[in-house]
Amino acid sequence: MKDFFYPKSVAVVGVSEDPDNLGRNIVNNLLEFRFPGAIFPVGPRGGQAFDLKIYPSLLDLPTSPDLVAVLAPARVVPNILDDCGRLGVKRVVVESGGFSELGEEGHRLEEQVQQRLRDHQIRMVGPNGLGIINLEIGLCLPFMSLPGKPRLGGVSLVCQSGGVGGNVIAWLAQSGLGMNKFVSVGNKLDISENDILSFLLNDPGTKLIYLYMEDLADGRRLMELGRQAKKPILLHKANIGGLSADIARSHTASLAVDDEVVTAACCQSGILRVHSRNEFLHAAIALLQPPLKGDRLVVLSRSGGEAVVVADACQKAGFQLPPLSEEIRQLIQSRSRAGVIKPMNPLDLGDIFDFTLYQDVTAAFCRDPEIDAIIFNYGPINEAEQEQARAMAKNLIEVARRHQKPLLITVIGNLEERLFFQHELGEPVFSFPGEAIRALSLARSYTICQLLPPLAAAPEISSLPAVDRVLSPYLDTPGPLPLTIALEVIQTLGIRLPMWHQVTSAAEAESAAAALGAPACLKLVAPSALHKSDLGGVLLNLPSPQAAREGFLNLQQVAISRLPDGEKWQVLVMPYIEGGFEVILGAKRDRAFGPMILFGAGGIWVEVLEDVAMRLAPLNLTTAQELIAETKVYKILQGRRGQPPLDIDSLAQNLVLLSALMMHCPQIQEVDLNPVLVFPQGQGTIALDARIIISN
Amino acid sequence: MKDFFYPKSVAVVGVSEDPDNLGRNIVNNLLEFRFPGAIFPVGPRGGQAFDLKIYPSLLDLPTSPDLVAVLAPARVVPNILDDCGRLGVKRVVVESGGFSELGEEGHRLEEQVQQRLRDHQIRMVGPNGLGIINLEIGLCLPFMSLPGKPRLGGVSLVCQSGGVGGNVIAWLAQSGLGMNKFVSVGNKLDISENDILSFLLNDPGTKLIYLYMEDLADGRRLMELGRQAKKPILLHKANIGGLSADIARSHTASLAVDDEVVTAACCQSGILRVHSRNEFLHAAIALLQPPLKGDRLVVLSRSGGEAVVVADACQKAGFQLPPLSEEIRQLIQSRSRAGVIKPMNPLDLGDIFDFTLYQDVTAAFCRDPEIDAIIFNYGPINEAEQEQARAMAKNLIEVARRHQKPLLITVIGNLEERLFFQHELGEPVFSFPGEAIRALSLARSYTICQLLPPLAAAPEISSLPAVDRVLSPYLDTPGPLPLTIALEVIQTLGIRLPMWHQVTSAAEAESAAAALGAPACLKLVAPSALHKSDLGGVLLNLPSPQAAREGFLNLQQVAISRLPDGEKWQVLVMPYIEGGFEVILGAKRDRAFGPMILFGAGGIWVEVLEDVAMRLAPLNLTTAQELIAETKVYKILQGRRGQPPLDIDSLAQNLVLLSALMMHCPQIQEVDLNPVLVFPQGQGTIALDARIIISN
Repeated sequence: MKDFFYPKSVAVVGVSEDPDNLGRNIVNNLLEFRFPGAIFPVGPRGGQAFDLKIYPSLLDLPTSPDLVAVLAPARVVPNILDDCGRLGVKRVVVESGGFSELGEEGHRLEEQVQQRLRDHQIRMVGPNGLGIINLEIGLCLPFMSLPGKPRLGGVSLVCQSGGVGGNVIAWLAQSGLGMNKFVSVGNKLDISENDILSFLLNDPGTKLIYLYMEDLADGRRLMELGRQAKKPILLHKANIGGLSADIARSHTASLAVDDEVVTAACCQSGILRVHSRNEFLHAAIALLQPPLKGDRLVVLSRSGGEAVVVADACQKAGFQLPPLSEEIRQLIQSRSRAGVIKPMNPLDLGDIFDFTLYQDVTAAFCRDPEIDAIIFNYGPINEAEQEQARAMAKNLIEVARRHQKPLLITVIGNLEERLFFQHELGEPVFSFPGEAIRALSLARSYTICQLLPPLAAAPEISSLPAVDRVLSPYLDTPGPLPLTIALEVIQTLGIRLPMWHQVTSAAEAESAAAALGAPACLKLVAPSALHKSDLGGVLLNLPSPQAAREGFLNLQQVAISRLPDGEKWQVLVMPYIEGGFEVILGAKRDRAFGPMILFGAGGIWVEVLEDVAMRLAPLNLTTAQELIAETKVYKILQGRRGQPPLDIDSLAQNLVLLSALMMHCPQIQEVDLNPVLVFPQGQGTIALDARIIISN
Repeated sequence: MKDFFYPKSVAVVGVSEDPDNLGRNIVNNLLEFRFPGAIFPVGPRGGQAFDLKIYPSLLDLPTSPDLVAVLAPARVVPNILDDCGRLGVKRVVVESGGFSELGEEGHRLEEQVQQRLRDHQIRMVGPNGLGIINLEIGLCLPFMSLPGKPRLGGVSLVCQSGGVGGNVIAWLAQSGLGMNKFVSVGNKLDISENDILSFLLNDPGTKLIYLYMEDLADGRRLMELGRQAKKPILLHKANIGGLSADIARSHTASLAVDDEVVTAACCQSGILRVHSRNEFLHAAIALLQPPLKGDRLVVLSRSGGEAVVVADACQKAGFQLPPLSEEIRQLIQSRSRAGVIKPMNPLDLGDIFDFTLYQDVTAAFCRDPEIDAIIFNYGPINEAEQEQARAMAKNLIEVARRHQKPLLITVIGNLEERLFFQHELGEPVFSFPGEAIRALSLARSYTICQLLPPLAAAPEISSLPAVDRVLSPYLDTPGPLPLTIALEVIQTLGIRLPMWHQVTSAAEAESAAAALGAPACLKLVAPSALHKSDLGGVLLNLPSPQAAREGFLNLQQVAISRLPDGEKWQVLVMPYIEGGFEVILGAKRDRAFGPMILFGAGGIWVEVLEDVAMRLAPLNLTTAQELIAETKVYKILQGRRGQPPLDIDSLAQNLVLLSALMMHCPQIQEVDLNPVLVFPQGQGTIALDARIIISN
């Protein structure tokens, strides 16, 4: 990837003298950003662009360029790649549109392009993107003039959309955050976001990475990169709506919309998920500060009201505002007129215009090891005090940097001062203190992410060969497994189920119930009866064999009246099991992230609570316990109100088994065990129902 | 209030020639904002301020002013009010600090001030505030220069904090939203936020009201005003943290933090709650548009990526993006080169620079009755097309206004263009399209608020006199009522309870259980045993009188080992009741909003689910049903998965009874019925426990 970002010479293919020609913009950007290397405009009609000669073809160039940017019509791109191959060029950026995004013909063109890349061993960014920027060397390849020119900074961007990328660049310029590198990946025909991310993680100029993606090709690789990262990665995953069409049909699916998979994956890999550009821009300010080590903040405010607002925000975000140290209390009391300033946190300095006091207090905060970050509400500033206030602000920033203490500044009610910070100091600031606290919240998440333990291996599960034997006849038939097979798979895997009898007559039901020697329950089983309870297809707590017989006849009526004509059905007889707390265990295979495991409140609570946590497989006992602990019902499992704790260990063991099944059998799309009853510690669990779906 | 906002002459007390004098800023503001009436600076040292004579005293003025603004030291304020009284001045704004916010002495000063107000029949805004602004007539009384000068617009502000107010004014100026009136209420010694609100609701210049409050004196009056309002009121209620100290002690309290009361009150009264200045500023843009009539949006975007972002935001906010009408599809197809533009919604116009197409499409959207609002992503704009693009934008705004259709504009990636909209067109715009959708969400809430039905009266409850007879001996003793009295109150009120026996020996327990003729449960009752289950003080399902005897002995052990030495205790024997779904019914009296009623998931689920909804009393059967329907467990109550619906009517009746109790007995601070078992429709409910707290 380095060769894409640090070329010594660039050819731009698709340039003409026509003032509407977009290729000219690329040349213009290179000149405007002072790219120091050679620039070779190329276009069949020749001529001049900004005093540079336009060569008719790549083959006419005086030397072979390190990088070729292409904005020629899609249909000629394969030929241009051939020319590149002849010249020995290995790095090409194709910005032209007109490929697979336009349909079948474009798709065929992409295949030709891929063939050429293989033939000539060329790596390509694009097509259908905005190209690459590296501000370190003035490389600027977008085919439109940038709406703002950011200063050189530590933020690098990978954007799937050029328009969104351009908007972010404008705001990086405006906010004073600055930028380092930018790539618009477009159709990702060769180079993907993961390839670029992998480079940026080791790029010394990049301190923080923002990804705007509308789809994720290889979620697992992204997660690996996230876990390796020693710098913050912020992911804005757009296009949640289209994917939510996947919701449908079964419980697990309806809870596990793919967007929640992305959230779970980010969580597990230390990638910070953001949901808007503003959230990213604010978070970047906090994340580019020295690392936040804890959650103890001090607030220094010139406005009492804004101090209240900060305290509210801290309350909501779970930050601490510890009392001031004795040293600082004394400092303030010795310096304030007649004790007007109350030495508390937030510290409202109100009308006190003693700027050396601000400096001394801030320096003391910086030295105090009990304080993790400083929030400073700067302003409002009168004209008379402007110069002194600005000098103070500059000094505070220097002091904080020297002590490696995060200092987040909000400029209150004074837009001119804001511009001073952003443009003269290159110091991004917040408009409202609540923004600073929410940004710091993400910085805290990042600190916590850094502590993620390494992934432990999943244990070997000895029951898998036996499961294979049960499953193998059914793996080629997409759709739900027959219930009895699903039950057998789960039982063979090692998850406890009640005994069951499959019956097809009232007499069989009666004798099965008699064999159980306990109250029975009956379930109607048929391919179309996905939600048995909704149909009235489940009868619980039938006290006698006679009741089971009558129950069968009832279910027969249900089958006749509610099932499609001619559909085959049968009835399962199981013991009725009392007590136990209902949970759901599930698994699902995601298109981008692969198998993931779900756990949550079960039975009637599934849809009411929407209390389902999710982790990507594989799980071991530790990560399974963590998954369980993420749910609200965990509180109940731990034993509430004098109730004994429930068998969380057994649940974790079941989740590990499910995980192993999903890792082992790629044909399984979905598993749904609902409800699973959990009993007090040591007494295990029992799954009352099982659904397994084989993928297409 | 009108006399505060439209004075013909203003005296400013506390002005001197000293350049640091803050009173001079008031005079300067009046001059700068071109207040057309007479301005009389007043200060004991006389001299001149900005070419105006400083009169030594109010009594020296040539005429009596309509309004007096005071920024003199707190201790002389009573005398100044006496002078005002002599002159017949009826309206005074006191900006000086140094009153109750500084403690006891300031509090006494406030009492003197109040006496003078009564004596002279003066109405006062303040003290300890930033005064009043009315841009309609250039009245500008803050003692500091404003950080920005907003244009005259429709937004009026009531702010408790001057600093926060100043910051908001700066942003109203910057955003192009403009401002109408501003009041900083300060310590609210006489005029409260409700007085001002009441005026602003009838003020033709005010189209939208923003309240920033750190406390609410009279929540009920605020709600009444909210219900009367024909314009949006946005409340930013700060200071949630301090109040959350109230959480403590009992279940109901721990769920019903006062901040949730504010939320419930806003919801019931049509006041829109915002949690940040940004949220307010964005919402104001949407709310100052023509009214949003439904949730069907169209999106017109120049960037495909930003169109994805809008669609995501619509998905999250629950807006519709209906397909385009046939007319519009044809219009687009007839005008686009080779079908490059896909006629869908969002409509990505991409590289098409045909601005008359934008205009024609927008006009068609405006005419389409199936479309409720238009989202327009403007930009990025190249230099060459700037003039034409701006003319188009101006035209689109005019067309939309003419059709009374909301048009929300996001300026993409071009800060210069943003300034054009804000300052040249006076048209506030968004920076990111997600902001526009979230703002529109609040506009939709406002539309829905407008449909709130009028409050129906609460029914008469005939059991209240009997309740009085039970309660009256206990009303003077703050704290929890003895459990048996609480049970009797609830039963007398008309809420069903199981039979209970109060026993003090194992033999009594045995015979009580025998009398029940059913499995029993035993509860340890003692003043310190608030959470009986946590102590192990509840024994359920004791099958025989003998088991009840043993149970008593167990509870005796618990009492001896877990209760404070010497504390009196007893045991209740009740029948053990099986089945039923557990909910919680509660009530609480809030300092600002008075009695409110709670309903939610009960038993072990209370703390896990935090699924408690809340309404201010009084309730009638309709509003009680609405309260129940706001919870997640409502789904279960309706009957899920083939289960019968539960007795919601009976629950509603219980809530109405609780509401009547709270309205009738102001001494009751809190009621907590948990759990209440709900049975299938027609079979009613039964409360298994009751706690009532008498207030101090």
